[in-house]
Amino acid sequence: MSRFLKDSIKKLESYTPGEQPQDKKYIKLNTNESPFPPSPEVVNAITTAEVRDLRLYCDPECKKLRAALAKRYNVESENVFLSNGSDDILNFSFFAYGEKGVAFADITYGFYSVFADLYNLETTVIPLKSDFTIDCNAFCNQNKLVVIANPNAPTGIELPLEEIEKIIVSNPESIVLIDEAYVDFGGKSCVELTKKYKNLLCVGTFSKSRSMAGARLGFAIADRELIADLEKIKYSTNPYNINRLTQVAGVAAIESDSYYINNCKTIIENRDYTETELKKLGFTVLKSKANFIFAKSDIIGGKELYEKLKENGVLIRHFEKTRIKDFNRITIGSREEMGIFISKVKEILGENL
Amino acid sequence: MSRFLKDSIKKLESYTPGEQPQDKKYIKLNTNESPFPPSPEVVNAITTAEVRDLRLYCDPECKKLRAALAKRYNVESENVFLSNGSDDILNFSFFAYGEKGVAFADITYGFYSVFADLYNLETTVIPLKSDFTIDCNAFCNQNKLVVIANPNAPTGIELPLEEIEKIIVSNPESIVLIDEAYVDFGGKSCVELTKKYKNLLCVGTFSKSRSMAGARLGFAIADRELIADLEKIKYSTNPYNINRLTQVAGVAAIESDSYYINNCKTIIENRDYTETELKKLGFTVLKSKANFIFAKSDIIGGKELYEKLKENGVLIRHFEKTRIKDFNRITIGSREEMGIFISKVKEILGENL
Repeated sequence: MSRFLKDSIKKLESYTPGEQPQDKKYIKLNTNESPFPPSPEVVNAITTAEVRDLRLYCDPECKKLRAALAKRYNVESENVFLSNGSDDILNFSFFAYGEKGVAFADITYGFYSVFADLYNLETTVIPLKSDFTIDCNAFCNQNKLVVIANPNAPTGIELPLEEIEKIIVSNPESIVLIDEAYVDFGGKSCVELTKKYKNLLCVGTFSKSRSMAGARLGFAIADRELIADLEKIKYSTNPYNINRLTQVAGVAAIESDSYYINNCKTIIENRDYTETELKKLGFTVLKSKANFIFAKSDIIGGKELYEKLKENGVLIRHFEKTRIKDFNRITIGSREEMGIFISKVKEILGENL
Repeated sequence: MSRFLKDSIKKLESYTPGEQPQDKKYIKLNTNESPFPPSPEVVNAITTAEVRDLRLYCDPECKKLRAALAKRYNVESENVFLSNGSDDILNFSFFAYGEKGVAFADITYGFYSVFADLYNLETTVIPLKSDFTIDCNAFCNQNKLVVIANPNAPTGIELPLEEIEKIIVSNPESIVLIDEAYVDFGGKSCVELTKKYKNLLCVGTFSKSRSMAGARLGFAIADRELIADLEKIKYSTNPYNINRLTQVAGVAAIESDSYYINNCKTIIENRDYTETELKKLGFTVLKSKANFIFAKSDIIGGKELYEKLKENGVLIRHFEKTRIKDFNRITIGSREEMGIFISKVKEILGENL
């Protein structure tokens, strides 16, 4: 870093994305990507004509895509905000709504603390309960920005909608942001609640269930006034931040919803398979509603398992944080990938017995 | 906007992008896009396989694209930063380097003042000289972030490299950012100077000469320490902000450099034609080194000409700012488009005589 950089940024600890190794082929179960390609409709939508039109700026208002999402989620276009991945929307939200401070769980998406530091926000870290569930009561009456991933990451555990509603009602003077990146794998969305509560911001992504991690498309659904806030920030930083091809792909993805619903069903089946097999091997597996599971073994440490699997060509995600260092987060891939994963785990455990 | 939004954002005046009307076909000479599609290599690079791989996250380090740009500009990969359009890089730079304030011209890219307001930076606005050139001496010894578009927008006028060097040398304790969005249309780049001066940040884009406005790809070239600063901010906000297809397209664009160099030559020819024709019609035309010209007529007001051209299916850009309200910025399109533009102007002037 240079001596010119603002001091508050120098001190920042950036987010560490999961490994994206370019050196060799791994079975990649480390960044919660989908094993399925985007729908055939999406593939067909990226025509030569669309690529040639890259010479033109994209529609900064994303009118078609907003309309498609509004229809899909049974809201109005004015209730939909789009940006360059849900990280972008989280970033905007911390910037916009964090003045009175921010509260989030001790074990949750690692980027929340990065955003909090970036904007120098007073942070209340609320420990998960001993069973790794969200402590609903502790999130009530915070009177500051409340951020909850639901299902939570990396635990995969869902917080029931009734508890979310309780948190929203008890924090009337601040925004409650529910990060639903993983909601399509068996969780319940709070989108309907956005019609009832003006302080609820529901954030989603095309990266997981819609197989478009590499396209960068996130969305928020909320009361129109919150959407106007986010638009204001987008228009004050980078109005054209969703490129033309991503907008086209996004519309096609919404129009092929049944394809993705089927994929989610398959992921849930593969998750059940993986959970069952890991339990047979003595693993503790948290009850996941996401496209990953969080599991630990009494036989082998989390880091050791991660490293041995990597040597064997399988990438999973390990976190250094003390409370979860025995666990690993395993993305649910195809049935074949999960079969290989389980057999590699068996081999590694065999060596350790 | 909502009552939850931070006060400092509520007051912001956002950037107003040029119109992107979706209602009907215009000859679009209002947002400095290229009339040429991306190169055939770019079109071929967006294969079905690449679209199917959208399920995977992109490489946050953009290794291939950085290497390609480094080779093209005769620097190292560690001297190259990539982000979601050059607006994104400008945003990061104001955030990172604006603590002691920022200085820019009164007539320049409209987004600079938006970023300054966004981060609540003390702003020194330096008037262009009466001939609309940059006042080099006034930018010296500012001891704060200095931001200069070169060629400047919307004037199109170039500041000679010797004067830029003078400004860099006289501001050793702060960053001098040269925004070279329009440099490929006859201007001289300061990239070589980044090897000599650690406080020089040179920003470029694929939106103009490389016909990729809709792909969102901007880059910065500078001393490695400045690049590390920008990486830090990217990794603290949105590490995956350049999507897979854009990265692939970017590499292909760099590999087909001669195609773009030829296009730039054509734009320069069309610019000469347009300038000559407008002068025949009595217009004052500033000497442009960009893919647009800035011109005014004594016969018709800037706004009136803009409106009449719009009625006639030709979009140009008008700015309300008092000092330049008689002018319009006209993007240089294809020879055919400029022919139609000139004939429409003739018709409109005929009505006004």
